[in-house]
Amino acid sequence: MTNTRFDPDTLRWTDTGLIPAIAQDHATGEVLMMAWMNRESLAETLRTGDVTYWSRSRGALWRKGATSGHLQKLVRLSVDCDRDTILMQVEQTGPACHTGRRSCFYTDVEAGAERITADPLPE
Amino acid sequence: MTNTRFDPDTLRWTDTGLIPAIAQDHATGEVLMMAWMNRESLAETLRTGDVTYWSRSRGALWRKGATSGHLQKLVRLSVDCDRDTILMQVEQTGPACHTGRRSCFYTDVEAGAERITADPLPE
Repeated sequence: MTNTRFDPDTLRWTDTGLIPAIAQDHATGEVLMMAWMNRESLAETLRTGDVTYWSRSRGALWRKGATSGHLQKLVRLSVDCDRDTILMQVEQTGPACHTGRRSCFYTDVEAGAERITADPLPE
Repeated sequence: MTNTRFDPDTLRWTDTGLIPAIAQDHATGEVLMMAWMNRESLAETLRTGDVTYWSRSRGALWRKGATSGHLQKLVRLSVDCDRDTILMQVEQTGPACHTGRRSCFYTDVEAGAERITADPLPE
């Protein structure tokens, strides 16, 4: 198995300097959310172990759970074969979704209709 | 639980008419890949049950496994809370990755170094 120095410049950032990052519950395998990182948020995530995205709407670093307390602790970080997507195994405190649900993916599409598959977690 | 008609126009497509789609093994929970869909590929995926992406490099519909035989059969399709990402549970035949590995996420980043965590599947 090779062991190469990791150089963030080898990732394929978008024209606006972002890369999509998927967060998956390390224990259950549930996919919790997908958000975006820039170079600074990736560096922060790797340095601190607190998953930190780039908020496109606010144009600012977004340390997940900084205000809500619903932190994501990094367990493992991978890049894909063409180096344009990040996958993280995380330890999620409480809900990952701003709606209070564990995962942001709570709407199924079936036979042309939408179905809500999860309720917000108890407070 | 609400049951609303699914309208693809309510998804948040990028400026170039795309949406990221994550494929997850429905049985193991392993995240296999992330690629992009346009309206036509999403419609094809839902209509046929064969996961079909949009190849940005080729500028063409990309029915996963059409040439390799490594099809992805759709088991379940979800959209996230802000309707800009798709998550699919799939039944993957053989490797999802063009390198012959089961998943595209076979490179871990740890302590500033990269580590390859999976070998190509046997032919």
